[in-house]
Amino acid sequence: MELVNQADLDALFEFLPCRTPEAWIQEALNQEEMLLLNHCYLEQCAARNALQLMFRCPDKPDVLSKMSKLAREELRHFEKVHELLTKRGYIYKSHQPSRYAGLMNARIRKINPGQLIDSLIVGAYIEARSCERFASLAPHVDEEIATFFRSLLKSEARHFKDYLTLAQNHSAEPIDERIAMFGEIERNAIESEDDLFRFHSGVPLVAD
Amino acid sequence: MELVNQADLDALFEFLPCRTPEAWIQEALNQEEMLLLNHCYLEQCAARNALQLMFRCPDKPDVLSKMSKLAREELRHFEKVHELLTKRGYIYKSHQPSRYAGLMNARIRKINPGQLIDSLIVGAYIEARSCERFASLAPHVDEEIATFFRSLLKSEARHFKDYLTLAQNHSAEPIDERIAMFGEIERNAIESEDDLFRFHSGVPLVAD
Repeated sequence: MELVNQADLDALFEFLPCRTPEAWIQEALNQEEMLLLNHCYLEQCAARNALQLMFRCPDKPDVLSKMSKLAREELRHFEKVHELLTKRGYIYKSHQPSRYAGLMNARIRKINPGQLIDSLIVGAYIEARSCERFASLAPHVDEEIATFFRSLLKSEARHFKDYLTLAQNHSAEPIDERIAMFGEIERNAIESEDDLFRFHSGVPLVAD
Repeated sequence: MELVNQADLDALFEFLPCRTPEAWIQEALNQEEMLLLNHCYLEQCAARNALQLMFRCPDKPDVLSKMSKLAREELRHFEKVHELLTKRGYIYKSHQPSRYAGLMNARIRKINPGQLIDSLIVGAYIEARSCERFASLAPHVDEEIATFFRSLLKSEARHFKDYLTLAQNHSAEPIDERIAMFGEIERNAIESEDDLFRFHSGVPLVAD
């Protein structure tokens, strides 16, 4: 299996404002079913977001091309997670999503080109965080899940760069300030307490 | 190239309430740019519809599996039509959609299981009509487009059957009456006059 190289992974860790807290990793190991269930759902969401961007950008061939390929990959991942879920006897069902994407989406500007650029930056954070969580979990989970997560690392690392490159290409100005602004929201979502365990949730609340 | 077999094509022609009127074919040959532009857009719509069904059916593994694969195929077709458009110097842009899908969608029941079954039947008609139009156009267009349309025939013929099978599988009753009802709407959309030329439009209005 072709694995992600360390330089790609380092670039991704540098982009993200923080690493996943240890307490989240411990909780994830106790909640395998919800981890996989929510992961499965997020692959669908990633495909939907890419498709939505395509509908909003008929005049941008680079967005169309990258997002179409990305949506196909996310759907392929969806199929694989769903297969793994089924194999383990878990039932895929609807469940309350985490606060994570919503916190960033709420700050996306309402008018283009700002709307497109912000949406792409948020896309980059979601992909980068997913990738970082696969890398953080892989050493702790069983061999089957670890192998699967490692297989996802490579494409997810590429997706985060695709999103960032598109954001820069469609902005007349530097996007560093927007990246930093969304980075602060992302850090807060990951490092603050969160009462709902999900793939992108924050630090689990400890019951008294 | 593996081609669709005649028996599959005959089953599809039998399912559809009518063949494409000759006047539409003649108009399509005069409107290559809009034909390809709208075809490109429809591949995106087909992927979006499949994904929407997935979000509505987390508890139906057969819908999830078939629709995820279908969405991936439609996105691959989108990429191919977009490539062809670009090669011919046409610019992909937003344009007013045809009345076709809207006429059928308006009759979809609002509550499940009726909503799901009707949506799947409408999906079958859209796929079958697309396939019939590829087959009807192929003998008349240039070699590059003809080869492309023939390559699409095989998967589109399969898609129509997938939709119908899912509709029957998720209905406790026979679905023949719903199929017939949507068939009448479909026939009317194809055989009545239509002032907008699109991939799924009706008989072109003749200017006096």
